[in-house]
Amino acid sequence: MSEPVIAVHAGAGTYSDALRQHEAACRDALQAALESAGAALEDGQDAVAAVRSAVMAMESFALFNAGFGSALCADGSVEMSAAVMRGSDRAAGAVAAITRTKHPIVGAHALLDAPQVLMIGDRADEYAAARGADAWEPSMFVTERQRRRLEEREAGDSPGEHGTVGAVCLDSAGLLAAATSTGGRLGQPPGRVGDTPLIGAGTWADRTVAVSCTGEGEAFIRVGAARLLAALVEQGIALEAAAQTVLDEVHSCGGGGGLIAVDARGNVATPFSTEAMPRGVWRAGGNLTLELT
Amino acid sequence: MSEPVIAVHAGAGTYSDALRQHEAACRDALQAALESAGAALEDGQDAVAAVRSAVMAMESFALFNAGFGSALCADGSVEMSAAVMRGSDRAAGAVAAITRTKHPIVGAHALLDAPQVLMIGDRADEYAAARGADAWEPSMFVTERQRRRLEEREAGDSPGEHGTVGAVCLDSAGLLAAATSTGGRLGQPPGRVGDTPLIGAGTWADRTVAVSCTGEGEAFIRVGAARLLAALVEQGIALEAAAQTVLDEVHSCGGGGGLIAVDARGNVATPFSTEAMPRGVWRAGGNLTLELT
Repeated sequence: MSEPVIAVHAGAGTYSDALRQHEAACRDALQAALESAGAALEDGQDAVAAVRSAVMAMESFALFNAGFGSALCADGSVEMSAAVMRGSDRAAGAVAAITRTKHPIVGAHALLDAPQVLMIGDRADEYAAARGADAWEPSMFVTERQRRRLEEREAGDSPGEHGTVGAVCLDSAGLLAAATSTGGRLGQPPGRVGDTPLIGAGTWADRTVAVSCTGEGEAFIRVGAARLLAALVEQGIALEAAAQTVLDEVHSCGGGGGLIAVDARGNVATPFSTEAMPRGVWRAGGNLTLELT
Repeated sequence: MSEPVIAVHAGAGTYSDALRQHEAACRDALQAALESAGAALEDGQDAVAAVRSAVMAMESFALFNAGFGSALCADGSVEMSAAVMRGSDRAAGAVAAITRTKHPIVGAHALLDAPQVLMIGDRADEYAAARGADAWEPSMFVTERQRRRLEEREAGDSPGEHGTVGAVCLDSAGLLAAATSTGGRLGQPPGRVGDTPLIGAGTWADRTVAVSCTGEGEAFIRVGAARLLAALVEQGIALEAAAQTVLDEVHSCGGGGGLIAVDARGNVATPFSTEAMPRGVWRAGGNLTLELT
């Protein structure tokens, strides 16, 4: 038996005006995500259900870059990606560049026990819909806020960035799980896929550790960040030190970012190299901590 | 200065009738790929150019499952994926589920120094075409042989499988590079993406090792196979032992397959757990070895 623990993040990035202005709402959204996941555990569900629930809650919050409220591609469209992984058997499900699945993490979860791990584009949306996932029209994901941000970017401004949401969990049975969801990078070319849906880059869980990454996706891909963390922990390196090594490697590949990780003993690390990374940790009994910077 | 070395594979799988009947042609194709890459090195080009050249040669050979001659999806279409990685700075480029780029590895290579690592679908084809990559009509990739194989599969037969091509290289300047290209799994659902284009799953290169994987893609993804190999070699584990550990983990995730790897000292490993993996090694001076089983 383990003491269950859940950690969530809402993206590493700048301590933007949006974050300052909506600090209370962001805290509330993190808290709601943790409480939703905590309720799942207390209801007897497992770590996979908990991270799925936490990410669904954050996908619904318009100020986080995932699901509803996703950052827009250069052409004004929304393309979303997500992944989930179960540590006990390393089952994984992931979707990339989907445009219609209301909760991308539900699309990823639909693949967790499927013959394929990763599906992309319309086919992934169709696969999820055929398994009961709610579908939206692509335009429904586009918020006025993200439309303004794209305009600011086109005008040469640099709107504050923070993106991607994720969750990791150790449940009372000792199962580890990780989930990540993103709308991608503001102004990205359509068709670009970052680290979030790539198992071993942005998302990973095994019997040792569960991790969800956020930041400059290409640098996380080039480091194999999540898989590297697991390999270091497997070698016996302490979680906090291993996480810092990974972020140092990401930095050496030119990228900033952060990650949340939990190991099989319930240790949690939430390092980041950016100004801010809204995050929170829930422990059994409802003990919550929330931080933004 | 290093003694340059190139290794190629044409997919782990069964020792199929096709392979038996066309053994000489397969050997010739492997040899042509190695000689093309060797000529690139002797011409003063680097390891990236060499692996690109080797993979292009194999993409053109109808009996290998990549480019022209790719395995068909369940709907009879061809979707191709490829990746390339440069060890010195871990720059990487990858494409997934493309349908029009004549040489998928050229599409991946077009992204090697781009802001994004991975692009998918039509957008990736358009990106490659805009940078000069030759484009074909999607139907031009479909061979009569692969159409028959899909029919056999639909009829309940199990046509012999071997798929994916790849190359790794250490050049005389000590640069490592890896490249992989595939038509995916025979009868796969359109939209499914395997390990080939996922940096750290099917393809990886850093300053320590370059690796290209082949086999049941989902198992390689769930192991983070290529990134794991690099982490083990980085720890000081000998290449051959590290490669075997990776294949053991892939097996424990239910998958068969193989890989080719070269380390910074010019050691080469080409282990596989399947009946056959057509492969070859080129060393400076044109010394060639070719094997199928």
